[in-house]
Amino acid sequence: MKKVKVFAPATIANLGSGYDVLGIAIEKPGDIIVAKKTKAHGLFFSVKTEHSNVPGDAKNNLAAYVATLMMEEFAPAFGIEMMLYKRMPVGSGLGSSAASSVASVVAVNALLPKPLKKIDLLRFAIDGERKATGAPHADNAAPSLLGGVCLIRSYTPLDILQLPIKNSAVWIVVHPHIIVETKLAREILPKEIPLHSAIRQWGNVGGITYGLIRGDAALIGKCTEDIIIEPVRKKLIPAFDNLKNAALQNGASGCSLSGSGPSLFAVTDSVAKAKKIATAMKKTFLSLANIQSESYISCINCEGAKIISAQ
Amino acid sequence: MKKVKVFAPATIANLGSGYDVLGIAIEKPGDIIVAKKTKAHGLFFSVKTEHSNVPGDAKNNLAAYVATLMMEEFAPAFGIEMMLYKRMPVGSGLGSSAASSVASVVAVNALLPKPLKKIDLLRFAIDGERKATGAPHADNAAPSLLGGVCLIRSYTPLDILQLPIKNSAVWIVVHPHIIVETKLAREILPKEIPLHSAIRQWGNVGGITYGLIRGDAALIGKCTEDIIIEPVRKKLIPAFDNLKNAALQNGASGCSLSGSGPSLFAVTDSVAKAKKIATAMKKTFLSLANIQSESYISCINCEGAKIISAQ
Repeated sequence: MKKVKVFAPATIANLGSGYDVLGIAIEKPGDIIVAKKTKAHGLFFSVKTEHSNVPGDAKNNLAAYVATLMMEEFAPAFGIEMMLYKRMPVGSGLGSSAASSVASVVAVNALLPKPLKKIDLLRFAIDGERKATGAPHADNAAPSLLGGVCLIRSYTPLDILQLPIKNSAVWIVVHPHIIVETKLAREILPKEIPLHSAIRQWGNVGGITYGLIRGDAALIGKCTEDIIIEPVRKKLIPAFDNLKNAALQNGASGCSLSGSGPSLFAVTDSVAKAKKIATAMKKTFLSLANIQSESYISCINCEGAKIISAQ
Repeated sequence: MKKVKVFAPATIANLGSGYDVLGIAIEKPGDIIVAKKTKAHGLFFSVKTEHSNVPGDAKNNLAAYVATLMMEEFAPAFGIEMMLYKRMPVGSGLGSSAASSVASVVAVNALLPKPLKKIDLLRFAIDGERKATGAPHADNAAPSLLGGVCLIRSYTPLDILQLPIKNSAVWIVVHPHIIVETKLAREILPKEIPLHSAIRQWGNVGGITYGLIRGDAALIGKCTEDIIIEPVRKKLIPAFDNLKNAALQNGASGCSLSGSGPSLFAVTDSVAKAKKIATAMKKTFLSLANIQSESYISCINCEGAKIISAQ
């Protein structure tokens, strides 16, 4: 393979109650990387984007960082020219950094003489997350790479379960044009929490796991309830309570922050309701906080990152 | 119906990680209640047991307490003579008090002119748990009543999910002849816990939920890992670490406290292994702590409390 074009999807991490352990891939948006072999050794990296906060240099862009990690480890007899089409801003809550890293490792891997299995690429993408947030999170990187619903059962050692789901719930993501830095969103969280709150949260995690397997939007939505993280982080999102109410009043069974925000996700049982919900949430962002936003509606993307074209 | 004989099974609550939210019913042991109508109004209660710590009077026995609650609410035109065959000691970690309460409410219900559905009996059994422990726990009462795996998603409001399971794992319970008071076992728990511990715990709760549905003993066992409750409560059980090691070295995929102890449970994938595990654990109790114990081996009891005979 000489040249490859890869798509890696955005993700909804946490799903409310499943903070740091649950993530799903969605159909769109996502990042694209085109990579081709060069005779000259090394990585020749560039970015094409309309978003102002995406680092364009190889030193600070995660896609370049993880590509370099792989090239150092596998020392291919060629160089790589890589173009990242960055279609999400950094700090969106859509797993933007993970999608770039995942697209990058899948692209580099495809060019190698002996490509690794997808699952074996995860550690490089997670190294990208460590660089981005200071911690080796997998709840965006794993679903963006592998698709479907990923449950990070354990980080030490890394143990990721892909749940066998009935893909019948419909997911809405609304992305407002504001930025929340993941690092800040982590720093404001409490270090200690009441045991009784934790118990309620893990009851919901059990429930959402079952709900996802059963494809039961009502159960999934109910179990997105998050009494630990959301009450703290929602302060970073203007009009959060109104947005959530708008979603629930228009047929959502649940609504919370996507990742660390500012995007919100909602879940429901039909595309018709999803459209109403998306419209109501966008209107609320605009009317109450004067913030533009866009919305995405999809089922779970069970495929994950994929090669779109190759030659 | 004039007379009824009811069996209510013992239960394993918590399953390690799922503290206060998960419980399963097992085949045996269990309590039996025989109840028959009398012309004289009121409850005529007695207990037959070989265990010394079972209250024999109607005022202090939970089975009588919940029967009285039901009779006050439904005011039947008859009295009830009730005999509890109490086959587990109180404070065993096997859901002993819940099994008595459940047998009682199922028996009283069967005698009523318009019996309620099983699920509608749960509130009476939970009232029994409130009296026993000071808190309205459902993780023993629900599986003893309903059978199978119960996930208490929420206590306020009460929301109980019965998981659709593949019943292929084999469960071992070893009950040592010592008593741990549930109230004490609750009082020693921390009020606050680190967020990072809670995250690890709810990753395991998600994993065990999936493992139970899949009937995967290896996954279930791995996810019984409990880094919050077990490290505190194990101090109440002599030689706990040795017992757990004995289970794991003989083929258990997981081992932890059953309820608040002193019983331990283990889980594995075959009856042959289960027998080896039970023997090893009993030997360890005897050799290291000079404590006699008995063991029970079963799959999950999917039926729950049942009427054995009626006339």
